[in-house]
Amino acid sequence: MKCTLAVTLLLTTLGAVVAPSFADSKPEEQILQSLQIYFQAWNEPVADKRDALLKDCWADNAEYTDPSTHAKGRAALSIEIGKFLGNEQLKGFSIVQASNIDVHHRVFRFQWEMRDPDGNTVSPGMDYGEYDDQGRITKIVGFFGPFQESQ
Amino acid sequence: MKCTLAVTLLLTTLGAVVAPSFADSKPEEQILQSLQIYFQAWNEPVADKRDALLKDCWADNAEYTDPSTHAKGRAALSIEIGKFLGNEQLKGFSIVQASNIDVHHRVFRFQWEMRDPDGNTVSPGMDYGEYDDQGRITKIVGFFGPFQESQ
Repeated sequence: MKCTLAVTLLLTTLGAVVAPSFADSKPEEQILQSLQIYFQAWNEPVADKRDALLKDCWADNAEYTDPSTHAKGRAALSIEIGKFLGNEQLKGFSIVQASNIDVHHRVFRFQWEMRDPDGNTVSPGMDYGEYDDQGRITKIVGFFGPFQESQ
Repeated sequence: MKCTLAVTLLLTTLGAVVAPSFADSKPEEQILQSLQIYFQAWNEPVADKRDALLKDCWADNAEYTDPSTHAKGRAALSIEIGKFLGNEQLKGFSIVQASNIDVHHRVFRFQWEMRDPDGNTVSPGMDYGEYDDQGRITKIVGFFGPFQESQ
């Protein structure tokens, strides 16, 4: 897995506990690694490389849903990410993790930000997700924007 | 359904669209009504009344999970709410909706606050959830506290 070193360095920087190998670690640790790979996939414009990243973190038949999209399975998600990265109006924009990953039971949440080519935040958002016993993502549901105050 | 009037008034106050009857409205409208009933259930100390409220909003075998609890089915959730409301250390505390309910596809999110007997917020939190074609809640997953900044 060619991204192992980068992921390990990233997780070490974040202060997470990195087990000796992916296979030996607990699901609660594996999901943190899976999510780092998932974030890489959202910023990988080359389809083959993106597919390989998703193979390492996204369970078969896992589902991705946001307000504008529903994608079931790895191939469908890769296509959706490709559409996002290939959108001329969003050229140079990126999706960046913006909070710690909060995990309990087999679920997680985190905040992210869409940033413009100059690094300015143009939109916040959050994802809810679920993972399996192998620490692979089985579901992600995204919400755009901040929570809105009660009216 | 004895709480219909109160729920209708509450939803009208919130500016939500209230269909002529629960059965005739769309799932996207029904889930807003279901959640108002659900919030009532979290503040109803009488078990029979609470069970009746949950019957109106909580699907059979729906699952509730938060960092400290997992409850499958209506009876199990009612017991967990009863434990919360019967906790002497939390006497007079309440759970209050603190954001609009953000809905897309068959999912939703909202923020809530735990308030002390004087009405002061002692803990924020958020719930993610899913609902069925009848607008009944099939899953709620809670997270305690605010999102934590990335380290």
